[in-house]
Amino acid sequence: MAYQRTQARAADALRPLTITRGYTKHAEGSVLIAFGDTKVLCTASVEERVPPHKRGSGEGWVTAEYGMLPRSTHTRSDREAARGKQSGRTQEIQRLIGRSLRAVFDLSKLGERTIHLDCDVIQADGGTRTAAITGAYVAAMDAVNWLLAQGKITASPVTDSIAAISVGIVQGTPLLDLEYTEDSACDTDMNVVMTGAGHFVEVQGTAEGAAFTRTEMDQLLALADKGIRELVQRQKEALAQTLAA
Amino acid sequence: MAYQRTQARAADALRPLTITRGYTKHAEGSVLIAFGDTKVLCTASVEERVPPHKRGSGEGWVTAEYGMLPRSTHTRSDREAARGKQSGRTQEIQRLIGRSLRAVFDLSKLGERTIHLDCDVIQADGGTRTAAITGAYVAAMDAVNWLLAQGKITASPVTDSIAAISVGIVQGTPLLDLEYTEDSACDTDMNVVMTGAGHFVEVQGTAEGAAFTRTEMDQLLALADKGIRELVQRQKEALAQTLAA
Amino acid sequence: MAYQRTQARAADALRPLTITRGYTKHAEGSVLIAFGDTKVLCTASVEERVPPHKRGSGEGWVTAEYGMLPRSTHTRSDREAARGKQSGRTQEIQRLIGRSLRAVFDLSKLGERTIHLDCDVIQADGGTRTAAITGAYVAAMDAVNWLLAQGKITASPVTDSIAAISVGIVQGTPLLDLEYTEDSACDTDMNVVMTGAGHFVEVQGTAEGAAFTRTEMDQLLALADKGIRELVQRQKEALAQTLAA
Amino acid sequence: MAYQRTQARAADALRPLTITRGYTKHAEGSVLIAFGDTKVLCTASVEERVPPHKRGSGEGWVTAEYGMLPRSTHTRSDREAARGKQSGRTQEIQRLIGRSLRAVFDLSKLGERTIHLDCDVIQADGGTRTAAITGAYVAAMDAVNWLLAQGKITASPVTDSIAAISVGIVQGTPLLDLEYTEDSACDTDMNVVMTGAGHFVEVQGTAEGAAFTRTEMDQLLALADKGIRELVQRQKEALAQTLAA
Amino acid sequence: MAYQRTQARAADALRPLTITRGYTKHAEGSVLIAFGDTKVLCTASVEERVPPHKRGSGEGWVTAEYGMLPRSTHTRSDREAARGKQSGRTQEIQRLIGRSLRAVFDLSKLGERTIHLDCDVIQADGGTRTAAITGAYVAAMDAVNWLLAQGKITASPVTDSIAAISVGIVQGTPLLDLEYTEDSACDTDMNVVMTGAGHFVEVQGTAEGAAFTRTEMDQLLALADKGIRELVQRQKEALAQTLAA
Amino acid sequence: MAYQRTQARAADALRPLTITRGYTKHAEGSVLIAFGDTKVLCTASVEERVPPHKRGSGEGWVTAEYGMLPRSTHTRSDREAARGKQSGRTQEIQRLIGRSLRAVFDLSKLGERTIHLDCDVIQADGGTRTAAITGAYVAAMDAVNWLLAQGKITASPVTDSIAAISVGIVQGTPLLDLEYTEDSACDTDMNVVMTGAGHFVEVQGTAEGAAFTRTEMDQLLALADKGIRELVQRQKEALAQTLAA
Repeated sequence: MAYQRTQARAADALRPLTITRGYTKHAEGSVLIAFGDTKVLCTASVEERVPPHKRGSGEGWVTAEYGMLPRSTHTRSDREAARGKQSGRTQEIQRLIGRSLRAVFDLSKLGERTIHLDCDVIQADGGTRTAAITGAYVAAMDAVNWLLAQGKITASPVTDSIAAISVGIVQGTPLLDLEYTEDSACDTDMNVVMTGAGHFVEVQGTAEGAAFTRTEMDQLLALADKGIRELVQRQKEALAQTLAA
Repeated sequence: MAYQRTQARAADALRPLTITRGYTKHAEGSVLIAFGDTKVLCTASVEERVPPHKRGSGEGWVTAEYGMLPRSTHTRSDREAARGKQSGRTQEIQRLIGRSLRAVFDLSKLGERTIHLDCDVIQADGGTRTAAITGAYVAAMDAVNWLLAQGKITASPVTDSIAAISVGIVQGTPLLDLEYTEDSACDTDMNVVMTGAGHFVEVQGTAEGAAFTRTEMDQLLALADKGIRELVQRQKEALAQTLAA
Repeated sequence: MAYQRTQARAADALRPLTITRGYTKHAEGSVLIAFGDTKVLCTASVEERVPPHKRGSGEGWVTAEYGMLPRSTHTRSDREAARGKQSGRTQEIQRLIGRSLRAVFDLSKLGERTIHLDCDVIQADGGTRTAAITGAYVAAMDAVNWLLAQGKITASPVTDSIAAISVGIVQGTPLLDLEYTEDSACDTDMNVVMTGAGHFVEVQGTAEGAAFTRTEMDQLLALADKGIRELVQRQKEALAQTLAA
Repeated sequence: MAYQRTQARAADALRPLTITRGYTKHAEGSVLIAFGDTKVLCTASVEERVPPHKRGSGEGWVTAEYGMLPRSTHTRSDREAARGKQSGRTQEIQRLIGRSLRAVFDLSKLGERTIHLDCDVIQADGGTRTAAITGAYVAAMDAVNWLLAQGKITASPVTDSIAAISVGIVQGTPLLDLEYTEDSACDTDMNVVMTGAGHFVEVQGTAEGAAFTRTEMDQLLALADKGIRELVQRQKEALAQTLAA
Repeated sequence: MAYQRTQARAADALRPLTITRGYTKHAEGSVLIAFGDTKVLCTASVEERVPPHKRGSGEGWVTAEYGMLPRSTHTRSDREAARGKQSGRTQEIQRLIGRSLRAVFDLSKLGERTIHLDCDVIQADGGTRTAAITGAYVAAMDAVNWLLAQGKITASPVTDSIAAISVGIVQGTPLLDLEYTEDSACDTDMNVVMTGAGHFVEVQGTAEGAAFTRTEMDQLLALADKGIRELVQRQKEALAQTLAA
Repeated sequence: MAYQRTQARAADALRPLTITRGYTKHAEGSVLIAFGDTKVLCTASVEERVPPHKRGSGEGWVTAEYGMLPRSTHTRSDREAARGKQSGRTQEIQRLIGRSLRAVFDLSKLGERTIHLDCDVIQADGGTRTAAITGAYVAAMDAVNWLLAQGKITASPVTDSIAAISVGIVQGTPLLDLEYTEDSACDTDMNVVMTGAGHFVEVQGTAEGAAFTRTEMDQLLALADKGIRELVQRQKEALAQTLAA
């Protein structure tokens, strides 16, 4: 018999999703995204310079940083600023977010400027990295729209939308959008990043317990595909709303 | 003629204040405090151990950490975790918050455990350290109430309430609760921390421009006293409400 | 027309592979593995203690570290010890190696001891992380055999073999075991880690240029499966030889 | 009955004060200042460049660093250079010294150069930060006189003198210029920085034990005012002497 | 009776020495040098820029870095990149290698470029620093020959050859070229660096146990002189061979 | 014709030497040693514990740290505590001081305690490391005498005296006790550490310019021997005086 999820959620159902634009006032893009109890603040900041490897190239750059507030998690974790270094996990995640967003940017159309995406987890309940990617896209779009409105660029450098979701196998049942208790219990955990056109940008599958078969992989990829189609639609709806000045 | 504040605020008026308890779900105390556009998330985490200097003492400890999200400010500032160290300003502020809260704790009644106060600035518009102290008190009270409810302690270790406010002189006018543009323009900036009983715990006055006279100092202390009385009342009201489980 | 590889290599062919056991004398396992011009020294060191999270558990631990000699690459890169920190890439890779090896270890049969796998790249030409995993397995087996020979354990904690390979799409052609020039030019890059039984432990696919389709993914997974079957066989042959004392 | 100080010192008396100019030979200003057993070496070094935030401004900069020799204190403390970071206390103090000195400098008259004030505690017995400020002023004056003598500037950028003293309440008695045993025992500790004209530059009062009242604050400020008047006079006398080449 | 060395080695005999040029393919010079079981990979990398203190001088720079693979030693040592800093021993050794090589370079003939010498210990059995100097010279010569062949310089900046050896007194017997067990047991340990012309560049003698007399020092210097003459000859022979492209 | 030294100093003469015991009040030993304008404060601190490698051994430990005040030198150097790490030079010097002092300590007679020697350069004019060793011996003796007086040990663990001096060749002239201008100009620089019995503990000779011959080395060693005999006598005289309580 299949694994029973909290709140009678179906195996292929996303958690309640909210996307709040304009959450803070200073950033060019500021989005609070919630997947159930997972809440991530994604801000997009425009800076009129690029890192050394892009200087003089005429191209821009898109980069991301990720952090968790110390008590976003069930037990308090050390503050990385106090420890004096970011963990390997943090670095992996911020590199993933940056690569994912760059996959839908034509950097030559951005001009020599940088969009910094800061993804800070306010509350964690599984799936923070995929929520961050999904929210960062919306924040990035608001920053791009600001650049267009300011006349700093004349055409959007964004070539497609991008969203991400986690899938996994818990007690033999493939599940979409794992919450923390599912993530802790799963045998296989996979994060999938896809474009609005339905192509893959990243697939990262890890066997936490038993190794997984090709058949299981196909089931997980199908679930992820379904979930990302919904996210792409929800991003579109959020961006269609008028943002209060 | 006196300095004109935004939104016709009186020189001795606080900004609109909101105190939201239970803002996140994992922490024993979790408070979002807003002074106008300054928004600080203050969480109180209970940990069943103490730092080395308190081990075996039978006493507890109360400590604080402070951080600003990179785009909480007008222009993005570097993430301290990525830079690999906390700035001198950050360290000063978190030491101030910790000392202030310990001033109203009888550590011998806390038992050998630590209350960590994490104060993270979501959005900054001046007065983040005083907002952090004022909000951290409410979060700490929720953590203490949790300890009492759990039967881990039988009497509250909290001896009084504590709140803080900034005052300053802008273009010759003494002002209460400076917002960012006032803070940047002021000649004198003073942060005052007081107990519910109306006594001083910290007074930190700095001449940013011209040195200040004894008369000006007296004016500022009077303003701070007025503001803190209001804050103490607002903390009391916030704590009187029932917190949803 | 399909992409032409150096030395007329077929799209589905591995580079010349050598596995040299006993490469250095101090380590319990010491393997130099070469995939063409990529050469990685993998040592396995047994230490009679475990990290804090395993203390008192009766279980052991398997962990990995990865490094590149500064001039293992075409242009010299900074020495990480001199810079004072490991890059995000280094941390990602060493976490991947550690997870992969742990997937075939029953830690409860190892006893409270640690096997450290050090994977140091002597010369790089693409595929260093997958070579490291493939070589580290052989080094780990030598360390396990040493533990058995010493009577420190009575049954092997190793449940299966493990190997890894990179695959990718270059100019539309799916290729097995990318060398550096192919890795730099590829649109999609995928690292696959599989057990001797043919199940997946890790799949990490990244679109470097255009996003990839489900069909392309299936082609890459089939290529990886073929390559890993060969690697598993070669590991078996290498371990079958008698190691000079 | 009032608290009895060592060596029958009156509650409102400074410790024996000596200011030795030209203590070391390389620095443009070099002053050993002693308040009783507290001895701080203050050097002023002129550097012909400014930090990034002042480049091209036509203005100069004045900054301070503070350190304690490891055995300047009763029990040896770790060397900060060996630990690899400065404590929060050190950073607070050096920021305070820098701000205090800048309060009496017209940076536009300094030219694009920096005066570095290094305050190193040779022996500590309470009041090291206030001794540092008081001595740094004299060292800074020697550096300014050197700049004038060299013809690098034609008018002094110094607008007033600056001095600092600690005051506190020990066993109910307000005391001037706390020595270490008094500092450890006091309920309230206040550091006051004032100009030669008698205005405040910094006031930092902290309740170490019980919170303090407005009346106590007034007593402390009056004591500080008295002490600083004496220090200003002593600085004047020290600077009036001819400095051996 | 004199100390008996392993494998009946004479007190004044070097261990079996091999010098393998072209060990790795990317570096301009790449030498594996083995003194018995001590094996050090020395690469020379040419970089077309110089450190700040040489910029605009028209002169070049020669510098060295040293590292030990974690399991090059009998028991595994921590990876310096993971610990985040190089030990004092590592820094001493790399400073020694750099000074030694610069002693035979006319930097004005190198042009504004840097030769980086990376000396990485693959396997350690005593004498790693002297092996590194001796091997780095050969690697540096290959890099210089590459510069000449490329037409980047027209005359060699190398003024003499350079080699190094350790000597020591074990149980009263002066020995040449100490292996690890001898190094651990010796009373006096001396590293000597000499030019091909037979002059001293560095002499570093340390009493590990009893202090040593002038007579003992003379014996050690004579032994070192003998050993270095042999090394100089072996370097010459190695460089006389044709290096495969 | 021979090199003319400042103040008509003979080639084989030490600079004016002063050894001031009891320079600061907290340390168990506190010595200001001056070789001409080089002034180093050497304190010896007794701590009732040992580093991990000595725990449970019944033996003690002697260790040293070295630092330069930022403006002890002609131009200001960065504060190592602010830079966050000690330079390679600093580490080399403090390792040298520690080894030198341990050479005259029988650690088994010290008991499980540590003597920390802190050598801080107040003013530098060449020869700071040799002054540090020479002064640290006197400070260590005062700490040992304190231990004896306290009854913590019953016999001195000190087996001999130890002193150090620099020698070098400037413009062809061998010189004793180099001051800064001589040190900068010398071709060969040698630091020699010897016991009171006249044996060598350390010899570190470096060719700064031309390599040096065996004859030159003999001249330098003879000069050092002469200088150290004088230092040993001066240490004896200093220790013979009664130290004010």
